[in-house]
Amino acid sequence: MGYRIPPLDRLADQFERIPGVGRKSAQRMAFYVLGLTDEQAGEFADALLDAKKKVHCCSVCQNLTDGETCPVCSDEKRDHSVICVVEDAQDVMAFERTREYNGVYHVLHGVISPLDGIGPEQLRVRELMARLADDGVKEVIMATNPTVDGEATAAYLSRQIKPLGVKVTRLAYGIPVGGTLEYADDVTLSRALEGRSEI
Amino acid sequence: MGYRIPPLDRLADQFERIPGVGRKSAQRMAFYVLGLTDEQAGEFADALLDAKKKVHCCSVCQNLTDGETCPVCSDEKRDHSVICVVEDAQDVMAFERTREYNGVYHVLHGVISPLDGIGPEQLRVRELMARLADDGVKEVIMATNPTVDGEATAAYLSRQIKPLGVKVTRLAYGIPVGGTLEYADDVTLSRALEGRSEI
Repeated sequence: MGYRIPPLDRLADQFERIPGVGRKSAQRMAFYVLGLTDEQAGEFADALLDAKKKVHCCSVCQNLTDGETCPVCSDEKRDHSVICVVEDAQDVMAFERTREYNGVYHVLHGVISPLDGIGPEQLRVRELMARLADDGVKEVIMATNPTVDGEATAAYLSRQIKPLGVKVTRLAYGIPVGGTLEYADDVTLSRALEGRSEI
Repeated sequence: MGYRIPPLDRLADQFERIPGVGRKSAQRMAFYVLGLTDEQAGEFADALLDAKKKVHCCSVCQNLTDGETCPVCSDEKRDHSVICVVEDAQDVMAFERTREYNGVYHVLHGVISPLDGIGPEQLRVRELMARLADDGVKEVIMATNPTVDGEATAAYLSRQIKPLGVKVTRLAYGIPVGGTLEYADDVTLSRALEGRSEI
């Protein structure tokens, strides 16, 4: 077991629980903390508690925010008649980085996954349906990930939404920009062919 | 700049300061913290402050410990007449993992590096010389890293120590076990040849 310093191990254990961080990295991170001044370590701990305390879900779109509603929902200039449905808050950030999308979002906080015991009740589906009950929403864009669970969730939601008379669309599948045809998988390539457009 | 949540950014900034952690990883780590329960986040912050508060240098060997002296220095069964001089606490852990070394350590907390303004006064050299002033130390093993600064530090220390009549040795250079000759660099290979032993 070698040489052990219990408080250091305890901190390394905390870092190791972060997905994608192995034992060696966790230990290096713990050593980094020991090298901080007391003030810096205090700031780190404070940032941790503060983020956890202040960040919660937007009351409208369920995206993460530190306000009552998120900046997107409270922005009058955005088109509130188009809702883009995504799996989690990171996806919203990805869309916002494109600066192309002017509608609003709805964050499900997961996907339907029967094997993991996650049904529509565990997701923010009720909140989405409540938003659609109000008039004014013209289109819902399904932007769940192109995985089995993501597709199933999109299919389930579109079955629920269509009877309300709202248009439901899905993100385009195709070859990624900058990718090469040679390395595209069969399904992606056939979807790209299916979705071809005139130039 | 896309969508921003200030407390989340602040936490991601903290993670990003850890060497080897980029912006994307830091953001993922911050999202991981948001997914913790309040109790878990509290434990994380507590582990951080606790490690910083409780871990300090051993009064004898300057290694990190949460006690007055480190477990190695307080172990009666270790050979206190042999001191292995290393750059930092991680190096002690590496030696302890081998379970081969039965002497004690001295941690310099860095190497002499004139370009960075680090001389012997900035390292724990005085503490090492004080330990050697007592009788009983027979050998000092230089185990600084095989870098220019590490070598210079070892050379400087051995010049200081030899007049005291203490044997000074250096770790063996050679090809790493499991390595291939083809990929060994020239200096390593010529050192391996120089230090060859009869079989």
